[in-house]
Amino acid sequence: MKQLVLIRHGESAWNLENRFTGWADVDLTPNGAKQAHTAGEKLLKAGYVFDIAYTSVLKRAIRTLWGVQDAMDLMWIPVVHSWRLNERHYGALTGLNKAETASKYGDEQVHIWRRSYNVRPPLLEAHDERNPQKDRRYEKLQSSEVPLGECLEDNVERVLPLWNESIAPALKAGKRIVLVAHGNSIRALIKYLDQLSDEAIMEVNVPNGIPLIYELDDNLKPIRHYYLD
Amino acid sequence: MKQLVLIRHGESAWNLENRFTGWADVDLTPNGAKQAHTAGEKLLKAGYVFDIAYTSVLKRAIRTLWGVQDAMDLMWIPVVHSWRLNERHYGALTGLNKAETASKYGDEQVHIWRRSYNVRPPLLEAHDERNPQKDRRYEKLQSSEVPLGECLEDNVERVLPLWNESIAPALKAGKRIVLVAHGNSIRALIKYLDQLSDEAIMEVNVPNGIPLIYELDDNLKPIRHYYLD
Repeated sequence: MKQLVLIRHGESAWNLENRFTGWADVDLTPNGAKQAHTAGEKLLKAGYVFDIAYTSVLKRAIRTLWGVQDAMDLMWIPVVHSWRLNERHYGALTGLNKAETASKYGDEQVHIWRRSYNVRPPLLEAHDERNPQKDRRYEKLQSSEVPLGECLEDNVERVLPLWNESIAPALKAGKRIVLVAHGNSIRALIKYLDQLSDEAIMEVNVPNGIPLIYELDDNLKPIRHYYLD
Repeated sequence: MKQLVLIRHGESAWNLENRFTGWADVDLTPNGAKQAHTAGEKLLKAGYVFDIAYTSVLKRAIRTLWGVQDAMDLMWIPVVHSWRLNERHYGALTGLNKAETASKYGDEQVHIWRRSYNVRPPLLEAHDERNPQKDRRYEKLQSSEVPLGECLEDNVERVLPLWNESIAPALKAGKRIVLVAHGNSIRALIKYLDQLSDEAIMEVNVPNGIPLIYELDDNLKPIRHYYLD
């Protein structure tokens, strides 16, 4: 049996303020940091061990991973940081409060952006300060890879190469993996693993800081999954 | 010009208690964690940027690196964790207080162990709980690679393969490197870089948590080095 544990980062400052975060590099709240430690303590108590960790290049995920590693005494395991595990890029909505966005664009439009699989938010202009091409951590990417706004479908498409080229081979080699990422990058993996429809995945909400355990067969088909709560 | 920044971990609990630490995985004190943040703040203020980090598999070094990364907003850079950067393995002295050791073995013998380049401490017995082969993080090593006690010469010999195979090529490729390690693994690098004699390196003491900046030419010969204090 192969073991993959998915964890959405702990509560961030913008989760609290109900703002679209996306690729904005917002930190955990003290509560979020505590959620991370608690997740690690639960995993340790339940006997989990990891050989390698995957996370995004955003600090709310990395700090959550650090909390898990610290609680489990696994600070020394290799960690892969990949932009492919970043949150869905919310385009021009990045940083906006969800109420403000609704009053600007209308409730229905916001609902469509949040709940449809393949409708992108308004894209960033290239000159926008929030364009990831202005951020050193993305400078090695092809410009075609740098999003200016994504729907969940886009997010799935950019997560899968990391799955195929790195995560799946590591699982097949017997590595026990913890992956700490974001609501939508984790949804992308869940959609792929459980072969959910475009509609069904939109109904899946991943809570902050609760380990989601996937047990997989040798072909990486899920046998079962459950939250360790 | 190539840039390599060496940092010895912050103060650990056993630094305070004056015990031989070696490969024992002792954590930082609160003061040590603060030293790490301060080092990162100084580097940030002085305009340093890093592309990749190297550290050991011991938490006092990793947590120091985390503090530096956090203070510099560089949590996302790749990190290489290598046992080759671990502290000198103190063999059967591991965990002993330096005063106790002196009363057991005599001051002169302790002085020889601490200050000679190529005299090993008493080795661990294979069945000793402190044998690294009982620790999962070293299970992939060849048994000939696992030390039961090291002199500084042994430490140099195990650090150099990492230098030659990973650090030096990264520097030559233009990567700006921060390396957070231990008193003796950093000495090993200093001896190699500055071509110090076996006697001269024993006089070098690296303080906790103070960035040691090496500026290197294209052949990785040191142009100058200095502490950022």
